[in-house]
Amino acid sequence: MGCVDTWLSEQRAHIEAAAVRIAGRARRTPVLVSELEGGVVIKPELLQRTGSFKVRGAFNALLQMCAHRPEVRGVLAVSSGNHAQAVALAAAELGLEATVVMSADSQPLKVAATRALGARIISDGITMANREERARQLAEDLGLPMVHAFDDWDVVHGQGTATLELLGDHPGISLVVVPVGGGGLISGTALAAASSSPRVRVIGVEPEVAADAAQSLHAGRVVALDAPPATIADGVRSLHIGDIAADVIIGRGLVEDITTVSEGAIEHAIAVAAQQLHLVVEPSGALPLAALLDGKLPRRAGDGPPALLLTGGNVDPQLLSRVIAAG
Amino acid sequence: MGCVDTWLSEQRAHIEAAAVRIAGRARRTPVLVSELEGGVVIKPELLQRTGSFKVRGAFNALLQMCAHRPEVRGVLAVSSGNHAQAVALAAAELGLEATVVMSADSQPLKVAATRALGARIISDGITMANREERARQLAEDLGLPMVHAFDDWDVVHGQGTATLELLGDHPGISLVVVPVGGGGLISGTALAAASSSPRVRVIGVEPEVAADAAQSLHAGRVVALDAPPATIADGVRSLHIGDIAADVIIGRGLVEDITTVSEGAIEHAIAVAAQQLHLVVEPSGALPLAALLDGKLPRRAGDGPPALLLTGGNVDPQLLSRVIAAG
Repeated sequence: MGCVDTWLSEQRAHIEAAAVRIAGRARRTPVLVSELEGGVVIKPELLQRTGSFKVRGAFNALLQMCAHRPEVRGVLAVSSGNHAQAVALAAAELGLEATVVMSADSQPLKVAATRALGARIISDGITMANREERARQLAEDLGLPMVHAFDDWDVVHGQGTATLELLGDHPGISLVVVPVGGGGLISGTALAAASSSPRVRVIGVEPEVAADAAQSLHAGRVVALDAPPATIADGVRSLHIGDIAADVIIGRGLVEDITTVSEGAIEHAIAVAAQQLHLVVEPSGALPLAALLDGKLPRRAGDGPPALLLTGGNVDPQLLSRVIAAG
Repeated sequence: MGCVDTWLSEQRAHIEAAAVRIAGRARRTPVLVSELEGGVVIKPELLQRTGSFKVRGAFNALLQMCAHRPEVRGVLAVSSGNHAQAVALAAAELGLEATVVMSADSQPLKVAATRALGARIISDGITMANREERARQLAEDLGLPMVHAFDDWDVVHGQGTATLELLGDHPGISLVVVPVGGGGLISGTALAAASSSPRVRVIGVEPEVAADAAQSLHAGRVVALDAPPATIADGVRSLHIGDIAADVIIGRGLVEDITTVSEGAIEHAIAVAAQQLHLVVEPSGALPLAALLDGKLPRRAGDGPPALLLTGGNVDPQLLSRVIAAG
């Protein structure tokens, strides 16, 4: 076993340990074989607690913190919404206080849900551009450890558990498709996939107007957006991928490709999910389906149906209503 | 073992045989533990093939027909939509021709889906009031056996398989809640429940404006509606329950109660399903959730969370859009 394989085995062990750690706290979501295109496989993380996959990483990170830093009484997180809810839930269950920095233009539904889970929310003067810096300052001022939404190995290993479940339930899968924002999910997915079999490829999907990860992969270095992107996919608005994702995607080449879809394709995918899959998907969570419907997924001879990770369902009701009416 | 128990054991054997027969054709839907009211259990049959539980009964009935009447080349069905799609799918897969009588005011989406599955549709001059009679005449004229939507033992046993799966996956369930139209589903549910344990109670839910089953249970005899009811729940508009349901519900007393909900409560339940469960439920399928949210479910000390069978997801997009926007 070479050095690279040793590293991958180590990552695998961390993801498997995460799966054991979060069992009974995060939900084991079902795997659905849909009627789309002859049996596209769906891992509906919108059925996860709080309506998104983020609880996997949040529970893994906070449980690790409880085990190794028992003096910690609270944590701080930055999030556009789903990581916020996930940290709020995990903190509440583990008896920790959660402080969450959310940009002032966050989706109101996600802000309300986070508050309802008992978190303290800081959003005055917070923007997508300044939130990371403000949070780091706050963490220092308040003496709180920060649970990063994607650039944290415990979070990445937690997110990877979804793909462990997927490949465990459907061993024949050869293509796993996930949304890309800061790159935490795609990193965990790629580590879980590559350590399962070299046959399992991973594709990321981004909005066209937030294509920094695709550009980064193709350029071979991290490319950042100049400004917060104007996409309805509020879960993937980070300006650039994190260091861990850069290592996994660019450095180690564990992601086959990252493709992009238009805003219209995202809306269409939300409508198709509602009408044909009977699932409510939020814009970020609809990215893999948008890529499928748009013919953006590479297919190889002998490939079985692709597996789509539909990552969340916390969509603004007015947006959902409009998109469904438009078909 | 007395006579009653013998009869129940026989019904149980039929439902278990149906489960074996339809395996690999109807889907084994997951059982979800939701975040509603401390863990209400959901059996989401909207994730079933064609988007409703009806394929269970249709496959069981058509497979029995294939086995025992190999000379049959086609079947006839009467349906407001979901049974139509189910029979069309099962017939197509088994190489039979399907003719479906649908009232002219059937939901357009369901008509289109039935046609897309290869069925011949007869709807000219068909109303909810005359469709049964017209279908019987057609069956005679065309020499086709009729697959009744609810008053057929094979159909009833097929529908009962959903509850076998539910109680198999969650043995602690003590209350199962289902919609009631013609009574095929509630009969199969009650037979599966009673034969599992006398501890498992079954509650039916009807629209207030279509409360014939509730009235029948309370009166001890079959009560029929005078005219097709003006409910958005298009799956439960039959004028009265069938003979099998009368036997199971009234004669043998295997259903604890049938409760009713308003049209507004049904719409609210559709919105809650979309926003909190991230599931798209059609009006008939939302009846159990409407009863829960409306406080209409009897709870006993020591009861665990109830299990709701959300039976289908084929909702008109404009209705869904409107209901979600209204919250």
